[in-house]
Amino acid sequence: MIIVMKSGSPSAEIERVSQELRSWDITPEKCVGQHKVVIGLVGDTAEIDTRQIQNLSPFIEQVIRVKQPFKRASKEFRYREPSEVVVPTPNGPVTFGQNHPLVIVAGPCSVENEEMIVETARGVRAAGAQFLRGGAYKPRSSPYAFQGHGESALGLLGKAREATGLGIITEVMDTADLEKVAAVADVVQIGARNMQNFSLLKKVGATLKPVLLKRGLSATIEEWLMAAEYILASGNPNVILCERGIRTFDRQYTRNTLDLSVVPVLRSLTHLPIMIDPSHATGFSEYVPSMAMAAIAAGADSLMIEVHPNPAKALSDGPQSLTLEGFEQLMLELAPLGKFFGRWAKPPFATATPKFASISSTASI
Amino acid sequence: MIIVMKSGSPSAEIERVSQELRSWDITPEKCVGQHKVVIGLVGDTAEIDTRQIQNLSPFIEQVIRVKQPFKRASKEFRYREPSEVVVPTPNGPVTFGQNHPLVIVAGPCSVENEEMIVETARGVRAAGAQFLRGGAYKPRSSPYAFQGHGESALGLLGKAREATGLGIITEVMDTADLEKVAAVADVVQIGARNMQNFSLLKKVGATLKPVLLKRGLSATIEEWLMAAEYILASGNPNVILCERGIRTFDRQYTRNTLDLSVVPVLRSLTHLPIMIDPSHATGFSEYVPSMAMAAIAAGADSLMIEVHPNPAKALSDGPQSLTLEGFEQLMLELAPLGKFFGRWAKPPFATATPKFASISSTASI
Amino acid sequence: MIIVMKSGSPSAEIERVSQELRSWDITPEKCVGQHKVVIGLVGDTAEIDTRQIQNLSPFIEQVIRVKQPFKRASKEFRYREPSEVVVPTPNGPVTFGQNHPLVIVAGPCSVENEEMIVETARGVRAAGAQFLRGGAYKPRSSPYAFQGHGESALGLLGKAREATGLGIITEVMDTADLEKVAAVADVVQIGARNMQNFSLLKKVGATLKPVLLKRGLSATIEEWLMAAEYILASGNPNVILCERGIRTFDRQYTRNTLDLSVVPVLRSLTHLPIMIDPSHATGFSEYVPSMAMAAIAAGADSLMIEVHPNPAKALSDGPQSLTLEGFEQLMLELAPLGKFFGRWAKPPFATATPKFASISSTASI
Amino acid sequence: MIIVMKSGSPSAEIERVSQELRSWDITPEKCVGQHKVVIGLVGDTAEIDTRQIQNLSPFIEQVIRVKQPFKRASKEFRYREPSEVVVPTPNGPVTFGQNHPLVIVAGPCSVENEEMIVETARGVRAAGAQFLRGGAYKPRSSPYAFQGHGESALGLLGKAREATGLGIITEVMDTADLEKVAAVADVVQIGARNMQNFSLLKKVGATLKPVLLKRGLSATIEEWLMAAEYILASGNPNVILCERGIRTFDRQYTRNTLDLSVVPVLRSLTHLPIMIDPSHATGFSEYVPSMAMAAIAAGADSLMIEVHPNPAKALSDGPQSLTLEGFEQLMLELAPLGKFFGRWAKPPFATATPKFASISSTASI
Repeated sequence: MIIVMKSGSPSAEIERVSQELRSWDITPEKCVGQHKVVIGLVGDTAEIDTRQIQNLSPFIEQVIRVKQPFKRASKEFRYREPSEVVVPTPNGPVTFGQNHPLVIVAGPCSVENEEMIVETARGVRAAGAQFLRGGAYKPRSSPYAFQGHGESALGLLGKAREATGLGIITEVMDTADLEKVAAVADVVQIGARNMQNFSLLKKVGATLKPVLLKRGLSATIEEWLMAAEYILASGNPNVILCERGIRTFDRQYTRNTLDLSVVPVLRSLTHLPIMIDPSHATGFSEYVPSMAMAAIAAGADSLMIEVHPNPAKALSDGPQSLTLEGFEQLMLELAPLGKFFGRWAKPPFATATPKFASISSTASI
Repeated sequence: MIIVMKSGSPSAEIERVSQELRSWDITPEKCVGQHKVVIGLVGDTAEIDTRQIQNLSPFIEQVIRVKQPFKRASKEFRYREPSEVVVPTPNGPVTFGQNHPLVIVAGPCSVENEEMIVETARGVRAAGAQFLRGGAYKPRSSPYAFQGHGESALGLLGKAREATGLGIITEVMDTADLEKVAAVADVVQIGARNMQNFSLLKKVGATLKPVLLKRGLSATIEEWLMAAEYILASGNPNVILCERGIRTFDRQYTRNTLDLSVVPVLRSLTHLPIMIDPSHATGFSEYVPSMAMAAIAAGADSLMIEVHPNPAKALSDGPQSLTLEGFEQLMLELAPLGKFFGRWAKPPFATATPKFASISSTASI
Repeated sequence: MIIVMKSGSPSAEIERVSQELRSWDITPEKCVGQHKVVIGLVGDTAEIDTRQIQNLSPFIEQVIRVKQPFKRASKEFRYREPSEVVVPTPNGPVTFGQNHPLVIVAGPCSVENEEMIVETARGVRAAGAQFLRGGAYKPRSSPYAFQGHGESALGLLGKAREATGLGIITEVMDTADLEKVAAVADVVQIGARNMQNFSLLKKVGATLKPVLLKRGLSATIEEWLMAAEYILASGNPNVILCERGIRTFDRQYTRNTLDLSVVPVLRSLTHLPIMIDPSHATGFSEYVPSMAMAAIAAGADSLMIEVHPNPAKALSDGPQSLTLEGFEQLMLELAPLGKFFGRWAKPPFATATPKFASISSTASI
Repeated sequence: MIIVMKSGSPSAEIERVSQELRSWDITPEKCVGQHKVVIGLVGDTAEIDTRQIQNLSPFIEQVIRVKQPFKRASKEFRYREPSEVVVPTPNGPVTFGQNHPLVIVAGPCSVENEEMIVETARGVRAAGAQFLRGGAYKPRSSPYAFQGHGESALGLLGKAREATGLGIITEVMDTADLEKVAAVADVVQIGARNMQNFSLLKKVGATLKPVLLKRGLSATIEEWLMAAEYILASGNPNVILCERGIRTFDRQYTRNTLDLSVVPVLRSLTHLPIMIDPSHATGFSEYVPSMAMAAIAAGADSLMIEVHPNPAKALSDGPQSLTLEGFEQLMLELAPLGKFFGRWAKPPFATATPKFASISSTASI
């Protein structure tokens, strides 16, 4: 960290600040310029709040962090090696990571009933997904909107898992529900609105359950990595970052703005795996395929795609859901692109992928 | 609500959509134009999600909400009369509302120790505050930053309340802590980061404890009122809205951007009382006085001001805290302005306000 | 400026960078820390682009500007004294500045016809304005919208000036029109969309005509001051800054977000006078009075208020225009507030202000 | 357009509004609901300003545009066929369009001297570019930063064109310079800061010169298309849209936020060709390759890449420039991807692309 003192700061004050810093086990190094004195801080400053230092003296003009405030999330923490998040699923372990195949997560916004979730699970599995997503607890801006079926939906996710062997990803919104959610979920999701729900971050951090951490609507990349740091610092190394669109000044044609440049930026900052959710980002199913392609080209490790057997009847987020046919079609298009980028040695679906009609009939066997 | 059908929509489809809507107890009224058909929806549409309607047909171009989605928070719900939130405190009931005196809330970002919080409470009371703010649980972007003293800090707030008779406002971050917090707090605060923590909103809504609902960093006014609606719909009418600055593209000279036009906008939309927090909004104590003045001139019902006996030693948010002397000075300046606007019949502090020096000596007795 | 070198930078490279900097007449001062080397730059760095330095070496991690990039606009440039912009008008000189009375600018969005502009000029003068605003050239987002009457409107502004003695403020959009506009205008306005039209800034900078520089929709405070710097550096010291609302994520209930905290922030950074335009900022006349009050309380030096004799028939921006009666009423309310803050020794309007009805009759004489 | 009247609007007022609208050659169609009356407007409403209608009556609650305000830029205007912008260059005509090969534009931020611009032109041509970009007039936020070499730089661009046969793209900032710029440029660029410089848009619209219209820093998609509409409505159909990153709340790790979802969104709204500029968007050369890949995958028709023979010595924007070697490397990587997406039948560079070393030697012949 660097402290810039105001011009004309009395040298006694500079000495006093330096003294104070030494008492924090930090070594201050003074650099006297023509107009300003600058103090470089040497030592473990990652855990210090810059505002805390700012408070030391009214003569401090600026405190600048040179080292990043995140530590366990930083690339350096793992000697610049990407981390791997291995998730055991009934179909076998699935690994999220830069040097691993692209992982596909698909499913509806919310779990509506047994038939619907099992049908969707079967469909997305046949088309190449490794995980089923589906909300039991739904954060909705209106108290009058469908809030998810809660605990009973968790049971249905369990049935879909059993029927297909897919891993389950579902959101937890309340510390009080974590145990119930973790009993069913293979990956626990922290939603965008809870990215800075620090109680929840600490609590999932105290388990070893893999965590999908969605970026907050207006969270900076640094805040997002600091949210991951909460989980990592609590002892859980299994964090996957998911970009799902940020809030900007233009919301007329897309629900959010997909910030795809996070892929190379995160690669340069952190070892954690990166997932992209083009469905929430754009809010419209027609824009999902091109953004899914772009995400793969940008280097994402995983995609989360909203799929619903009948979007027109979906209890939530229908406009951004692909149909099962649409998802199968998308996977057929993504397969050669994934291969092109070396992320899939072979197509993620069974070589003789049945056309959708037959998937349905398979599903009904 | 209004449904705009795409040009060329088959009339059978328009009929199908209308039929579906009738099954929801809504009366559709068709309006046939040259290029488009528009369907007006008559009935109780406040509880319907526009996206839900969008899902009904691929021929729907747009669904436009004409009535606001909030109902209990709307001005109409109280026949355009402002609501009053009456908070019992040891010094007597304090009322937040448009036709009541301006209420001053002051205190430190976080409770540090007994002496500090009691001294601050005494100081802000003498200077005219009715409430002491102070964090026991602190949302911090870094896991390595001071997280608040938690339960023990709640005890200290209780002592400050006892010592001064001030009402207590403190934040709850986790549903699991609500009971403990509500035992001490006269007003429970939902922080900006938890504005859409719907579990928490429902839980405070299930009590009758007054709730201070801070606006989320990038929450629209509508989302903010919908968050209030969660609390109101759960049965708790005692909600105070607090603007504390929003996130914009410019963060170089202020921490957030104070959106002061919410005052007249909220007045036209809702009956709920409005508080302004210029300390968090600007992030620098030197900007607090002019923004506090502006807030009163804009018509705010209450101010929340950060005050710390020694900002340079504050464990959090020192740069935005006034000293006790600074706060006393500010109150002396605000008093005639509050009177000018008819919000204070007499100064909020004892007529013979002791100069600060004497406050300290009083405090040390 | 401060250069932070990446950890592990070879010392030869650090030497090379230092050598290069010396060739720019800057003295580099090296500060060696445990992890990083930091180079402080001493000398006249205000005119150096940080990105230019960044280019010097791939080992440079960050270049941090410690001194502000603006120089003539900075408070230090005038020894921390506020500047005064004196504008000669037929009614006598009017001074914009922190230690001068509040200046009121009022008038319609665009000049529509002679009767309308002269009637408005008479009305706003009687109510206390010193300047008439009115657009001859209008920036409109649609090519199909009314673009202003151009040159003929300039003539009408001249007539209104003659009839009332008010100073004229009108916008220039094109370097080719500057001469014509400056022949009529007492203050030339650079609109928000042209804040970074650097050709235009240089050209108005080459005159001594007072310039009203509106803040761009998404301009940072630093960019705004750098735009002022363009004018100042070209030799024209007569710059007035005008905040008119910025663009944020929420545009549902206001057209823009009025960033009122610019008042104290600009005070701490620059000597230039500050105007607030609550009409464009909020976009709705009903919100103008409370924001005008707030602007005065925040410490603004001038207000720009949109006034139209018949907003319902306005060719542009009707919803944000006050009627002449509304403006007279507002001025009656602002007068005691201006007095309260010491910005008006006496009401800005004639002591025996005729009620509006009589103004009209006066106007028709 | 749809007008929503406030509840309780007197029917005489509704009649008056309808009457007024009829005088504008619009047919109002009334739709009476339980709470509100809605008036649908039939006729040519594209050229009407919603705010103009809002002005008609204080009983109007909302005016909603159903048809888009842009007309010539809309897909419907060309019967949903993509338009082609054919640009004659010395090497032959190059076509920008959805059904044409990807067009590569490359070159430095600004033209520095003859050797540099000719060397760059030769290098980028050998690597596969069809156009050379290079600024003669540079919009810089500081008046003290390098402003471009102006007219003499235009001459150097002419030499580079002659030497390589590449088309030239360069920016015009002032209506007064258009003639000079158009004499050299094959495509005239309107920069982000001038996207709403309506005088300039009209003036380039009055020529038939192809125009590259960059999106403004905080321009909505609708505003951007309306800016294109200015050019189209002035008679020039040759418009190419270029996304170069938008301004958001997070500017720590990238200069702007690349909004790549504009590709599918624009495809659904307009017939105009789409270019992506990953260099300005991210601000760092290391992020350019992955964003260039993503742009192709998203479906862009053209890429603009900043290339400089020696970024460390660049007079502007060095950090975001690729070296000539870097650009050649990038083109080698893009070639198979362009082929994958059917945008290049064969590699854009000569089959026997010389390695960079040899390019240099060629250049020196």
